[in-house]
Amino acid sequence: MRFNKGKLFVVSAPSGAGKTTLCNRLLGRFDTIGYSVSYTTRKPRHDETDTEDYYFVDETAFKGMIDRDEFLEWAQVHGNYYGTSRIRVEEILGTGRDVLLDIDPKGARQLREKLDYGIYIFITAPSMKDLRTRLVNRRTESEEIMKVRLDNAREEIRHIHEYDYIIVNSEINKATNELEAVYIAEHLKADTIETIEDIMEVD
Amino acid sequence: MRFNKGKLFVVSAPSGAGKTTLCNRLLGRFDTIGYSVSYTTRKPRHDETDTEDYYFVDETAFKGMIDRDEFLEWAQVHGNYYGTSRIRVEEILGTGRDVLLDIDPKGARQLREKLDYGIYIFITAPSMKDLRTRLVNRRTESEEIMKVRLDNAREEIRHIHEYDYIIVNSEINKATNELEAVYIAEHLKADTIETIEDIMEVD
Repeated sequence: MRFNKGKLFVVSAPSGAGKTTLCNRLLGRFDTIGYSVSYTTRKPRHDETDTEDYYFVDETAFKGMIDRDEFLEWAQVHGNYYGTSRIRVEEILGTGRDVLLDIDPKGARQLREKLDYGIYIFITAPSMKDLRTRLVNRRTESEEIMKVRLDNAREEIRHIHEYDYIIVNSEINKATNELEAVYIAEHLKADTIETIEDIMEVD
Repeated sequence: MRFNKGKLFVVSAPSGAGKTTLCNRLLGRFDTIGYSVSYTTRKPRHDETDTEDYYFVDETAFKGMIDRDEFLEWAQVHGNYYGTSRIRVEEILGTGRDVLLDIDPKGARQLREKLDYGIYIFITAPSMKDLRTRLVNRRTESEEIMKVRLDNAREEIRHIHEYDYIIVNSEINKATNELEAVYIAEHLKADTIETIEDIMEVD
């Protein structure tokens, strides 16, 4: 059986759509996925750990990485920089493991332009009204930042057709099941499967 | 929200790969799928019911339907005729329900040539050796018919790349989960989803 390169799964969503929870659940279920930790200049939230949730770096360090072309994609979102290290992603894929990228829609757009592979999944709340409610309940953002997030969400949803799959997160267990289904189904596609020689040979 | 036509899922496999069990499990789980019952000239097995498992008809009736072009596909397999009624399939799809077609690989090939839609899934045993074991254990076929089935299986597996998805049925619960994943994932594809207006409008 010949060696398989891993698959790149890009999960993107407006803030508050439940993307991080869904990604963590997928990672918890499949040990065939490596998580590529992003770089960011934003401050860690109280429950976040450096090198696990993000590599938290300052702006000077981040801009140095941009200059050295070390990012597969990077973006400034809500005043902070976020970036995905090209080397870290390719290292994981090269070992045959899949990569899950949890990035914002602008980053996803850069990836689509740069790469000729990848499965793009958009997670959305059932409605803008619902998204607003979730952001209010989270209580981590000021009114002003929340307004920016909602404006961004409206714009991002207009680009929804650029994705391969859309998951409407109306109920977290259903949405988890759907994300898992996409992950499983993508590995069953006939144009990527390696089993034919195995099936034929033992007779 | 505009009206969605149902999707056509075509499940095909060599005899003995476990296709019928898998299809029944999928139908049992999702009431969004209508099963299009095939026509056949072969004799019912002891556990089969007319109009549920097949429409059991004689050869004269079957050939009349061929002449009136009433089949979406038909084939002679192991000496018997099998056919799928075009009207029955289109009736179900027209109501917005999906259709699951459980047909042999030759029938699947006819469908692919005739239709510009449909999701094609191939179920296979993990190896030809394994397939032979399953057929022997079933004890419903003579040695001669079994040899024909195995020769057919070998030929069918050569066409495996014409399918969209391949499920290797090495363990029935895993294979069931995979078939369900394909069914769910296909409904999340961005080019078919209808939710964008719903997400945007309530704000």
